[in-house]
This record gives sequence, structure tokens and C-alpha cells, in this order.
Amino acid sequence: MTQANISLYYKNVTAEVLGPEHGINRDQFSEIAAKTTAAIEKVNQVRAAGKTPYRDLPYKAAYAASAKKLAAEIAGACENFVVLGIGGSALGNIALQTALNPYLYNTDDKQRKGPRLFVLDNVDPAQLGSFLDWIGDKLDRTWFNVISKSGRTAETAAQYLILQQMLQERLGPAGFREHVIATTDPKKGTMRQITDKYGFRSLVVPDGVGGRFSVLSPVGLLSAAVCGIDIDELLAGAADMNQRVKNTGFFANPAAILAGVNHHFYQRGKRISVMMPYAYGLKDLSDWYRQLWAESLGKAKNIHGEMVFVGPTPVKALGATDQHSQVQLYREGPNDKIFTFLQVQEFARDLTIGPAPDCAPELGYLAGAKMSKLINCEKLATEYALVKDLRPCMTILFERVDARTVGQFLYLYEVATSIAGRLFEIDAYDQPAVELGKDATMALMGHPDYAAMVAKIQPIATMDPAYRI
Amino acid sequence: MTQANISLYYKNVTAEVLGPEHGINRDQFSEIAAKTTAAIEKVNQVRAAGKTPYRDLPYKAAYAASAKKLAAEIAGACENFVVLGIGGSALGNIALQTALNPYLYNTDDKQRKGPRLFVLDNVDPAQLGSFLDWIGDKLDRTWFNVISKSGRTAETAAQYLILQQMLQERLGPAGFREHVIATTDPKKGTMRQITDKYGFRSLVVPDGVGGRFSVLSPVGLLSAAVCGIDIDELLAGAADMNQRVKNTGFFANPAAILAGVNHHFYQRGKRISVMMPYAYGLKDLSDWYRQLWAESLGKAKNIHGEMVFVGPTPVKALGATDQHSQVQLYREGPNDKIFTFLQVQEFARDLTIGPAPDCAPELGYLAGAKMSKLINCEKLATEYALVKDLRPCMTILFERVDARTVGQFLYLYEVATSIAGRLFEIDAYDQPAVELGKDATMALMGHPDYAAMVAKIQPIATMDPAYRI
Repeated sequence: MTQANISLYYKNVTAEVLGPEHGINRDQFSEIAAKTTAAIEKVNQVRAAGKTPYRDLPYKAAYAASAKKLAAEIAGACENFVVLGIGGSALGNIALQTALNPYLYNTDDKQRKGPRLFVLDNVDPAQLGSFLDWIGDKLDRTWFNVISKSGRTAETAAQYLILQQMLQERLGPAGFREHVIATTDPKKGTMRQITDKYGFRSLVVPDGVGGRFSVLSPVGLLSAAVCGIDIDELLAGAADMNQRVKNTGFFANPAAILAGVNHHFYQRGKRISVMMPYAYGLKDLSDWYRQLWAESLGKAKNIHGEMVFVGPTPVKALGATDQHSQVQLYREGPNDKIFTFLQVQEFARDLTIGPAPDCAPELGYLAGAKMSKLINCEKLATEYALVKDLRPCMTILFERVDARTVGQFLYLYEVATSIAGRLFEIDAYDQPAVELGKDATMALMGHPDYAAMVAKIQPIATMDPAYRI
Repeated sequence: MTQANISLYYKNVTAEVLGPEHGINRDQFSEIAAKTTAAIEKVNQVRAAGKTPYRDLPYKAAYAASAKKLAAEIAGACENFVVLGIGGSALGNIALQTALNPYLYNTDDKQRKGPRLFVLDNVDPAQLGSFLDWIGDKLDRTWFNVISKSGRTAETAAQYLILQQMLQERLGPAGFREHVIATTDPKKGTMRQITDKYGFRSLVVPDGVGGRFSVLSPVGLLSAAVCGIDIDELLAGAADMNQRVKNTGFFANPAAILAGVNHHFYQRGKRISVMMPYAYGLKDLSDWYRQLWAESLGKAKNIHGEMVFVGPTPVKALGATDQHSQVQLYREGPNDKIFTFLQVQEFARDLTIGPAPDCAPELGYLAGAKMSKLINCEKLATEYALVKDLRPCMTILFERVDARTVGQFLYLYEVATSIAGRLFEIDAYDQPAVELGKDATMALMGHPDYAAMVAKIQPIATMDPAYRI
């Protein structure tokens, strides 16, 4: 099979299609190109200075090798692989699995190329309890991958402490040691200390790579390798894309166009960015994108002493399903959104729609057609309807969905985020606003270092009966 | 066990908490109350005139009886129950299952109270193909519930035609007839004709009840009854809520407060409405809400000859997970959102966090705590952080998650939608903007009646190479 690629189609954001009020005209495109070219140059400089190490992940053969080695060690014995992680330590793993393995991978032993995969990214006791009830008698065939740079993330730590107790009790010290794999800081931090104490196998969370940019590091690679995904092709796809997105020529750089067009529309009141794949398998790439875009670009900035709040709101949708849920709003609601479709040219498999019964000739138009044709016609029909109402649309076209094209997609959006960070004039790599909630959680859980905070939270914590009905 | 209820807490939208710029002060609340009381009165009048039949579903014992009778007929023999439906014919079924059955219900035979449930609400050939590969040798233990009022919904029809062919081939005419159940119009339409031709068992989609208001009709009740959910309690919960939401006293009516507060903030530029449950089980209630809110309220209206586009954008989020994905944006992005948390007071089960290893005393604050305490502290911490940045928050508090409280929740939001429709001055029950995409799909699929449309779509259908990179 020849190599598949992704491409970006953006004609349906232009004034030629949408008219002067909602579309981008030639002069505006020139302005966007100029601003964005400057942004690409800065992004390239920062990279050259070694300050965005995520950019080099496609070339880190040692990381891929470490993931494959570990996957090989547990292959055969491992029937269930469980990731404990949250946010950037979960979303990439989930996205790769949904995109690159079958829908019923976990259910159907014949469709599995490796162990079942579970990603536990919450602290809901009913949910986790249901999981533990099921896994309890399968622990000897189950491996747990704890992913946390620091080991202090409350959700992952809480899950880990529950599982540590369970594994120690049921498998003994040697079994416990065998069945936990840590992906964490190589030198310091809570999870590193725990890993060294018990002698777990471990993989590295690279320095300077934030959670939301870590999918191509061991954070995302291990579960993928374990579940039979070709991680070399994934990295090769990212490397393909690197050649395209470092280009300072705006119109030759798809990351630049994504960033520039999104920024342009944001400034003109289109502050919601909907990603709508027309393929079930790509739905969790939207969820991965949702973190990347929100956490990177949602930032307060101080302009001449005044706080200004910026950041587009990413929204995940799913075609064709959400045509029956969201498209009414997308067409007739405020023109405050930009749409990015993900479209698959050639599905991994296809189905033929059966004949219509005699009593229902009105379904004859479907009979004998390929289902892939139907879903792609629906995408086009929705785009047509949106464009008719002057809503801007772009499409990322996947020639096929495979590890190579998914690698291209991930790297495309990572670099688009870096470029957009420059256009929004914010730091795309920090997340200062997350800290207060973390501190408040520790305070409420009784952490002695945060005791002073409890009194501040109290007015919110106590429900005032006057406002409760 | 005493009956559990839900309540609404809304102090954290007031000026007392958020200050004058972002909060609602007493005078504003009085204005909102006056406007909303008028809306409740109109909603009650329309109901009394029989024009919103969804309002009477809690009292339709015959519907519940028909669902329970059918569920009893297939109980034992049925190991897999498959819903073919999309939009309002899928989202309620999914929401009830996720809320009221265990996380690993489909996976763990010990946790199942009935057959596995699959809701197929898309036309992705790779996804459906994976499902058919697995189900293919289990058809004699599998029942298919086709849900479509008209039977002409392209996605459901396409799925049905594939399954009809498969079932006829593999089970013969009698088996095919036995294993399909139609939920459709009792008298007319494509699915009714097919049902009569083959002699399928069937349930009724009531007249005048739109898809997104149909969860408490046979559309949502059958799969729930089949999977062991107490549908009488579900309806009793809705009836409980009916007593509260017909109240014309604004401050005693939680649906009125939800509608009035949302409308107020929308008019002041907070056009994104985030629903964020802190419970995995409630996550698909958000998805159900997302359709209800978007499709009902996203409407163009003609004001003195000019088209005006209105409608809040509903967004689903999940706590605590999305703290590590969206909260950075929610706090530091534009103050353009209103947040509604769903919180569970008493989880169906709980877990105790294990002891911290000696080498990690920094995790000591978690050791021995209940996981339910952690997730609820996280909710409070997030709310505290948002309120500190003057973002309005409400909470729907579930004393427990059970059929009764879920019934209350569903009816609460349905009536809130009706009231909000009045405040936005739009028709909450139609969805005119969905039609164009349906027609365009038929055109592109070669339906002869829509042939003239193809030429109009062509400029969008052909990708212009000048804009593809």
C-alpha cells in the first residue's frame, strides 16, 4: 500500500464562498499570512533554542524502543492493560486506541491484537468500583501503567493508592512489583521515589514536554505499542508533518493556516471552534484537541495593567450523529463558530446497504450503496448547509486512518497550537489557572499545608438554604 | 430507603457572590422573575391545550406497561439488545443506561441485570463492521430495536437495511420477524409499513412528541426496561418534578430559575452553557441535554424583516477529568460561559483510598479518605476557583443517582427548555435547519426526487486544488 497523508482544505472560509461579512478576502489573507509568518519564525527560533522539546519527539527513537521493549516483555501474559492517568496522561492514549483499533477491540477477542485497554481518568467511586469488581480476579493477567510526571496529581495518586493496596494484598510483593509500570520523571518526584522503592519498571516523561504535548513520548507510546499500534509509523507521520509545518511560507504550511484562520475568526467574534469528525474512530482525536487548544490558548494576559481574558472554546462534535443534535444550532444559532471537519477518504472497511423492501421504495436510493459513501455525502451535505448560512468550514482530509496519518494529525495540531499561541500573544505551554483548584482540593481533603485556605472556601462550601430549591 | 430527590442551588450566580458586573442583583432577579413567570404561564396554557404532549408522559402507564411486557417476552433469551436510532432516538437510551447501570455492565456478566446494550447511532462502516463481526454468530440471542417515527431517517434506515439482509439470510423469515422490534408511528410511515409487512412487534412513538422530548415514551423506556432499569420509578420521578415545574412562583420553580438565569446571562454575552457532572454515570445526561438545549433553542427568527440568530451553545464537560483539560480556559478565557455542575451527594458505592508508602508522605492527605469525598471536594474546589474569577455557577444536587432522581432531572430540563423557548421567543419544538442537510444527502446519494439539487452542491463538493495543502 502506498503511504497515506492528510491534507487541509480551507476554501470554505473565504469571502469568495461566504461573502465579505463572514469570509476572509484576499487582503485579509495577506495580512494573516504576514502576521502568521512572523509567528512561525518565532516558533522555529524557540524550537532551535531547545525550548519546545515536544518538537523533537518524532525523532526520539530511544523512546519508541523503550516502549516496544516493555510491550514485548509483557506480551502474551498481559490480557488487560490499565492506564492510570488524567488529562494529558490519558487523552492521547484514548485517542490513539479509538483511532487505530477496532470499535469492539475490548469486547471481541478475535479483533484484539493485544490486551484489552482501560484508561481510568477519573475518581468516581461507582465507576472505579465497577471496574475493580471485574478486574479483581484477573490481576495476574493485568498490568497497570501509572502515568504522572510528579506523582502528586491527586486523581492518579488516589487511584494508585487503591490499586497498590489491592495488588500488594492479592499478588504479594513480587507480583505487585511485576504488575506496575510507571511513566514518570527519570530522577525526581513522588512517583519516581515510589518506583525506586518498589523496583517498578519505568519509562520517561521527558523534561519540558507538557502533558498535552506528550502523546508522542512514552506517555502515549506504551499503551499504543502494547495494543498493537505501529508506533514507528506514528512517529514517521509526525516527522512527515514536521517538514510541512516548519515552512515559513504561510500558504504551504497547514499548521499556519489553521492557526491564522482560527485567530482571525476569533478576533471577529467567532470564538467557538467546533471539530467534527465524520468517523467514529476519530472522535477522541477531537477530545485530545479540546485539551490542547483550551489549556494552551485559554489565558489571561495583562495589557497595560488591565487583565484581558482570551481563548477560543473548542467543542467536540461527531458526524453524522450530531447532525441530529447540534446542526440546528450550528446553522440557525449565532454565527459565532468555525467548523473543522475530519473526513476519511477510504475507510478501513466498508459495508453495502441491503435492498429496500417492496413496501418501502422510498428507501431505494440507499439500497446497494456503500455506507462510506453515505457518511461522506452527509459530511458534504452538512458543509453545504452551513456554508449556505455563511458559517466558515475547513476540512482535514485523511486519505486513510492509519498510524501514519494519525501521527501527521497530532503533530499538525501541536504546531498549530504553538503558532496560535504567538498570534494570541500568550504562553501556550503553561496552565497557571489550574493550580488554585488543586490547592483548594488539598485544603478540603485536610492537607495540613493548606489549612489556611479552608476558611476562604467555606462561604462557597456551605449551601445557603435561601438559594436551594 | 427513603426517596431521594434533586435540588437546584443557584447562589453562585448572584451579585452577592460575583459582584455587580457578572452577578445577578436583586432588581435583576425581580425582572427575570416577572418575565419568566409570564413564560411559565404560557407554557402551562399550551400544555392545557394539549399542544405539548411530552408533559403527560409521566402519567402514561400504558406506555410503561407495553415496554415492560415486551421486555418480559424476550427476558432470558436476549443476551444482546441493539438499538438502531439517532439523535432523540438514541441519546435518552444511552443516558439512562450510563446513569443507572454499572460502568462495566456490558463487560461483566456478574454486573448485568439484563442483556448487553448497544446503541448504534452512526453510519461509520468501520464501526458498524466491527460490531457486525462480533454479533454475527450471536444473532439468535440478539434483539434489534429500530427506533424511527417515520422510518425515513437515512442513518437508521441504512443500518436497518444492512441488518434486515443479514437477519433474513442467517435466521430465516421467522427468526427475522422474531428478532426485530420497531418503535415507530402506530399508523403511518415507512417503518410502520415495514413493521406490518413482516409482522414485527412494535411500540409507539407518540404523536406530537419530538425526538428530543421522547425519552420518557417507549422510545427510551424499552431499552431501559430490558436492561433492568425501574421505569416506573423513572416516571414517578418525572411526575414528582411536574409538581414543581408547573408552579408559577418563579423562586419555587427550578425549571424557571434554570431558564431565567440562562436567558439572562445569554443576553449579557455569556452564550456558552457548560454542563459538568462530577460523576461518570451522569456524563451522558449532559449529552442528552446538549441535544435538547441546542436543537430547541438554536433558532433564527425574523424581527421586522431582519433575520436574527439566537441560541446558547451547550457544552458537555466531565469532572474531575476535565479539570485537566478545560478549567484553564474556563477560568482565564473570556467570561462568556455559565456553568451547571451535577453533583452526587451519596454515591451508589464508595472506595477507601489506601495508605501512602513511607517514601511518599506527601500523599498522606489522601490515605484513608473516601473517594466520594475526593470527587466532591474537587467539584467544590473548581467551583471556588471559578467563582473567584467571577464565573457564574449553578449546581443540580442529586441526593442519590437512581431512576427516581434521573426521572426528575430529565423532566426538569425538558420543562426548562420549554420555558426558555418562551424567553428566547422562538419555537422550541421544531428543527427547520436540519432539513436542508437531509435533502442534500438524498441528492448526493442519487435520490431521483432531489436530482435538481446536485448542481447547487457541486461547487462545494469539488475540492478546489488552490485551497488544499
